Amino acid sequence: MAILERNDTGAIAHLTLNAPERLNALSDEMLAALQTELDALRDDRSIRAVILSGAGKAFCAGHDLKQMTAGRQAEDGGKAYFTDLFNRCARMMMSIQSLPQPVIAQVHGIATAAGCQLVATCDLAIAADSTRFGVNGVNIGLFCSTPMVALSRNIPRKQAFEMLTTGDFIPAHRAAELGLINRAVPETDLRQETWALAEKLASKLGAAVKIGKQAFYEQIQMPLEQAYAYTGEVMAQNMMHRDTEEGISAFIEKRPPNWTQ
Amino acid sequence: MAILERNDTGAIAHLTLNAPERLNALSDEMLAALQTELDALRDDRSIRAVILSGAGKAFCAGHDLKQMTAGRQAEDGGKAYFTDLFNRCARMMMSIQSLPQPVIAQVHGIATAAGCQLVATCDLAIAADSTRFGVNGVNIGLFCSTPMVALSRNIPRKQAFEMLTTGDFIPAHRAAELGLINRAVPETDLRQETWALAEKLASKLGAAVKIGKQAFYEQIQMPLEQAYAYTGEVMAQNMMHRDTEEGISAFIEKRPPNWTQ
Amino acid sequence: MAILERNDTGAIAHLTLNAPERLNALSDEMLAALQTELDALRDDRSIRAVILSGAGKAFCAGHDLKQMTAGRQAEDGGKAYFTDLFNRCARMMMSIQSLPQPVIAQVHGIATAAGCQLVATCDLAIAADSTRFGVNGVNIGLFCSTPMVALSRNIPRKQAFEMLTTGDFIPAHRAAELGLINRAVPETDLRQETWALAEKLASKLGAAVKIGKQAFYEQIQMPLEQAYAYTGEVMAQNMMHRDTEEGISAFIEKRPPNWTQ
Repeated sequence: MAILERNDTGAIAHLTLNAPERLNALSDEMLAALQTELDALRDDRSIRAVILSGAGKAFCAGHDLKQMTAGRQAEDGGKAYFTDLFNRCARMMMSIQSLPQPVIAQVHGIATAAGCQLVATCDLAIAADSTRFGVNGVNIGLFCSTPMVALSRNIPRKQAFEMLTTGDFIPAHRAAELGLINRAVPETDLRQETWALAEKLASKLGAAVKIGKQAFYEQIQMPLEQAYAYTGEVMAQNMMHRDTEEGISAFIEKRPPNWTQ
Repeated sequence: MAILERNDTGAIAHLTLNAPERLNALSDEMLAALQTELDALRDDRSIRAVILSGAGKAFCAGHDLKQMTAGRQAEDGGKAYFTDLFNRCARMMMSIQSLPQPVIAQVHGIATAAGCQLVATCDLAIAADSTRFGVNGVNIGLFCSTPMVALSRNIPRKQAFEMLTTGDFIPAHRAAELGLINRAVPETDLRQETWALAEKLASKLGAAVKIGKQAFYEQIQMPLEQAYAYTGEVMAQNMMHRDTEEGISAFIEKRPPNWTQ
Repeated sequence: MAILERNDTGAIAHLTLNAPERLNALSDEMLAALQTELDALRDDRSIRAVILSGAGKAFCAGHDLKQMTAGRQAEDGGKAYFTDLFNRCARMMMSIQSLPQPVIAQVHGIATAAGCQLVATCDLAIAADSTRFGVNGVNIGLFCSTPMVALSRNIPRKQAFEMLTTGDFIPAHRAAELGLINRAVPETDLRQETWALAEKLASKLGAAVKIGKQAFYEQIQMPLEQAYAYTGEVMAQNMMHRDTEEGISAFIEKRPPNWTQ
């Protein structure tokens, strides 16, 4: 079994973190496998939505602490390895965001530290209502500084600070209230709800979703006037797509669109 | 009947989008009428609060798709027209934000695409509890990239992304939970609740509200230290207003202020 | 009695605003006392968490309006004094944020204007459920422009705008919903809940909390890529701490850590 499985069903790619005995830790191997798969998906025009889930008891428990500890054997005590590790991890996270297709986290069990960051980084997330979320590195003396980047861009400031400094878990319904996930569902419905969302996204015009996802993360970092100048241009270009012309005509004529894509 | 009606009652200007047969679409004519009225309000010192509502079944259903489709007849397939259209629309939206007076959206029926953007752009919004909100351009292949600018500055990231990529509607109570509107009220109370809020705003010292509204949107885009340097200066200048001196004296002396404005 | 009391219990410093007859107003003297104590705490390695509360009926009612009015006697009508006052107040607020130790507001009664800013500025806040919060300067013609800086970085935009322009109070449970505080608790539990949180924070590795708090406010203002480059470096350095090595080893070996700090 590969450490990361990919199964495509129609236009949906399902990635499964597959190191259940280590709670799907983001080891060097897992990070490399994720990066490779994300790079492949980027240019795969047959795929319109991606689901990311974890095998076994948990979604993901963060970095691989045993592997990191082994890294201390280097002459520099691991400094160069750790810097490289966090850079590789950040690059993988940013690749999710820059992927043309939307990525949905299908979360169960626990999502902790960099595993919680992974949930925060995905464009969308649905969790089993029994899932617990935490950025609990502080409990072992390693503050979750990189997970904080994604977390603090998803939930309000004081609630993020509390999670980071107490290391406490929050339940799925609280994660939904705070905006960390889109919703919590009964565990028995998790797969079905996630797939229904993925299928809905895949049913849209792929070019429009791709345009929109990229613009979403670009404009959110811009001052207002710049954001409007940028998205105005994006929308004018979107209007020039042949399938968008057909989509609008079909809407006006009250018929289903006949899209080439 | 004008495409945009303005009725002033005391210090409150009530603008009504008045193209009910097109669900108050933001056509070229509607955008021009809004821009003209906003430009007039900017210098109208008799007005202290603005209400924006829509005639007929809906608040606003976004851009005028038939007019946009007609724009494709140009030699460039409409590219120049679309670019100009989105620029004019963004300019109108930013004019609401830069207007000295606070603007309250009084929302009912539906607020979709650029109509949802209009709600997100107003300083405040009250909606009938039966209202539905959506940024559903994705359904016709035209991602709501400009509405996204306003939406993603009002509600959490994952919830904004879901609305934009699914095109799904959310009900008014959910819009209130997410921060898109201030509150949902029974449809029969909508007019009264909106007016009560407008009258409360109009009862404040106009100069203070004007100072504050401008500073609100300026400082929110600044790094913390710069925001404090800027607002510290704003507040020191506010202190120098004669009416502010009177307001503070009246408070200390436990009497109502006798304001010149 | 000093205008600001400090009582240390173990690693927790408890600061009490002690001008109950003036609702703990942020007078020149109070601001100076807070600044002095914050500067002292910065280098006090025995302290790992700070609690900030108010003596008497209220947490803090904002600036001292009588003292500000007296400042108008200067030749310039007070302009230089007011500018300096708001700068000193902003400096004190930013010192809370740049303090290495987390600061918890223990809030009761009312927290208004700069008193509400103080709550918003603390890293964490717990309030008695009877507490009322407001940025009500607009009612006396002095818009809460500096409190707005902290408030608008804690709660959603439309809700902040409404509080600022109406001057209305919100109850503690609403403050918790919006993200202004971490939670509201029964008044009889307030002290105990705040201390339990402070003790939990103090039980963590001090170096990790210090690293994390600083990085929290730095990265939140950065674009994503820069935030990851910065926090990746922070985390690699955190890994090199001797106590972090011990914390991770202890976790792997399923034993409590033996920290030097």
